[in-house]
This record gives sequence, C-alpha cells and structure tokens, in this order.
Amino acid sequence: MVAPRRLRLGTDERRAQLLELGIKLFSTTSYDDISIDDVAERAGISKGLLYHYFQGKREFYVETIREASLQLRRLTEPDPKLAPASRLRAAVDAHLNYVQEHGPVYSAIYRSGVAIAPEVSAILEEHREVVMNYFLHDLQIAKPRPILRGALRAWISMVEGASLDWIAHPELKRDALRELLIAGYAAMLAKAIEMDPKTARSLENLLRRAGPDAA
Amino acid sequence: MVAPRRLRLGTDERRAQLLELGIKLFSTTSYDDISIDDVAERAGISKGLLYHYFQGKREFYVETIREASLQLRRLTEPDPKLAPASRLRAAVDAHLNYVQEHGPVYSAIYRSGVAIAPEVSAILEEHREVVMNYFLHDLQIAKPRPILRGALRAWISMVEGASLDWIAHPELKRDALRELLIAGYAAMLAKAIEMDPKTARSLENLLRRAGPDAA
Repeated sequence: MVAPRRLRLGTDERRAQLLELGIKLFSTTSYDDISIDDVAERAGISKGLLYHYFQGKREFYVETIREASLQLRRLTEPDPKLAPASRLRAAVDAHLNYVQEHGPVYSAIYRSGVAIAPEVSAILEEHREVVMNYFLHDLQIAKPRPILRGALRAWISMVEGASLDWIAHPELKRDALRELLIAGYAAMLAKAIEMDPKTARSLENLLRRAGPDAA
Repeated sequence: MVAPRRLRLGTDERRAQLLELGIKLFSTTSYDDISIDDVAERAGISKGLLYHYFQGKREFYVETIREASLQLRRLTEPDPKLAPASRLRAAVDAHLNYVQEHGPVYSAIYRSGVAIAPEVSAILEEHREVVMNYFLHDLQIAKPRPILRGALRAWISMVEGASLDWIAHPELKRDALRELLIAGYAAMLAKAIEMDPKTARSLENLLRRAGPDAA
C-alpha cells in the first residue's frame, strides 16, 4: 500500500481536513469499528499529530458532529437575496439535499449521536435554536412569544423526524416531502398568528411590506 | 428508619410495582445516582429478589422506559366511542396531560434514554409506529402510501419535539400547544390528500360517512 502523501498544512486547514475525514468515516463505519490508528492512517499523519488536535476518538467524534451541524446550518441559512416566500422553499430544499447526500451522517447525528457521546445533545439543541433564530430574523422578531416559539420548535422537530423517517423509507419523493414540510410550516405560523394577537401585530408590517408575494 | 413492609405479591404484580417505582426514581434522580441497592430498599425487597426480575440496573432502566412507553400508548389510543373529529383532540389532550404530569420521565425517555441504553432507540421507534397505526386504523387505511406515511411520521415527531420544548419552556399554555398540534395534523393530512389522489380516494368514503363532523 502506498502511504498517503504527508501534506504540510496550517493548523486550521489540518483540523478542517480531519473533520471532513471524520464526516466520511462516521458515515460509513460505526463508531466502535473506527480506531484512532485508522484515522491517523487515512489522514496521512502520525497518531501524535492527531492527538495534538483531538484528545481521543470521542472528542474527534463530537467535533465531527459539531462540524456537520455547522455545515448544515450554513447550507440552510435563509438567503436574504431571495424573496421572502422563496426563502423557506430554498432552505427546505437545501436541508433535504443534505439529508439525501449525507443520510448516514444525519442519522448518526440525530439517532445514535447521543448514545455515543451525551454532549451531542447540546450540539443538537443549539442547532435547533440557531435554525429557530433564522426564522425569527426573517420574521423580524427578536424574542418570540411562547406560541410562536412553540410553533417554530414544533416545526423544526417535524423536519428532523421526517428527515430520519425518509432516510429509512426513501420511497417518498423528495419534492413531496418538501411540500409537506412547507405546508406544515405555513399551518403552524398561521395558527400562531390566529391565536396570539401580539404575534399577529408584530408580523403585520412585515406581511404588508412583503405584499402578495408573501402568501 | 422503619423498613418498608415486605408485601407478598405475585410475579406480575411485583414486576409492575418495580416498574412503577422505576418510573418514579428515574423521574427524580439521574441514572448514575441510582444504585440497585436503592431500588431494592425503596421496593422493600432483597437485592436477590430484584435480580430475579432484572439482570441489573441497565435492564431495569430499559424495562422502565418500555413500561412508560406502554402507559403512554394506552393513554393516547383513540377512543372509538368518540366522534372521529373529537378523537384527535382527546388523544392530544391525553398526551399533553402525560407530558405535564411526567415531564422528567418524558425527557428521560426522549432526550437522555438513548445515551444510557442504545436499546431505548428501538422502543421509541416502535412507539412511533404504534401511534402511526392508531391514526391509520382511524383512517381505515391498512398500508399507507409514502406521502401519508411521511405526513404522519412528520407530525408524530412534531409532537415529540414540541413536548420536549414545552417541558423546558412551560410558559406556553397547554391549550395553545394542543391547538397548534391539531392545526399541524390537519395541514399535513390535507396536504397528503391534495398531493396524492390515491390516498384521497381511500379516504373519500370515510370522509363522506363521517359527514360535516369530520371537518
């Protein structure tokens, strides 16, 4: 076997490269079947150098999950260049693309991640809060009232659960799932507005400014 | 300290009593802080007898989670005596009552359960399938097409996630959360029907028979 070429990389580049490798490894191989020796060999670096970046396999795993969460956040961040009505569709599309391309990573994060390292729970919870804040920012609301928070968090869980079930049951067409999720969002937001006059009032100006496009 | 009275119970009764105790213990105390000695003492039985029922703390924990899942299933099973339109409201009410009364157990099951024992994952997945089948039975559909399955499973995840967020943020009113969840269900079902003519046709007779009450 030809040893991989040992590239000289900067610290941040090396760390990013290792996390990319982690995403690949944990997508295809179970946690228990991966050793630190494998990781070092695949990365073409010494075990000593690997330990310079991560204390051990568990920290490497947790940081890989964190990196995957950050990548997914970047991909699904609403694009301010799009019209408000198109932003949700684009974000859901980006999310489902990610799930389709990285099903094993997504499952690893959301299904088995917490079993391997309980600190994954905090990464997931932070992810949900970040995604909720994307929506709040788009709705120009700094602090949601309880109903709006409940509606958004309920919907974010719906997206997670639907994505996981889709990985296990891929016979559902991608576009159909996207439309289901968008219908769920619209219904939750409409119900929150209907039930809470204060939330409705904070959105009035936004809806007026957005015009018919916002429907 | 007065030792608890040692009752003579049948095997099934004793097991049921131990699982009830498990639900109480794991609601108030973290897994790591509970010992088999505590459990035996609280149950008023010898450690030897406890090991007769459960191989150890982990099996006791897993069986406690299974029992909690079974209790929640029994509570949320749709009541055929109710009109179709009232069944969902009653089931969601029963679910939210459970979450309100047993928040720590519910969190333990859905947030930290898998971290303690990976087999909890299979219990949760079975729970979701059972709840989906309640709905399919009510809709008189034996095998859902992918869109309907996706819609129902998405909604079930929404209920889980909204419940967990509600435990952490109880300022949301119970009835408001119930109405949000019902609106989510109605929207998902309506979208599945709209997108899939075959699912729509299998529900036509049911909707016709149910009359305006089903709206």
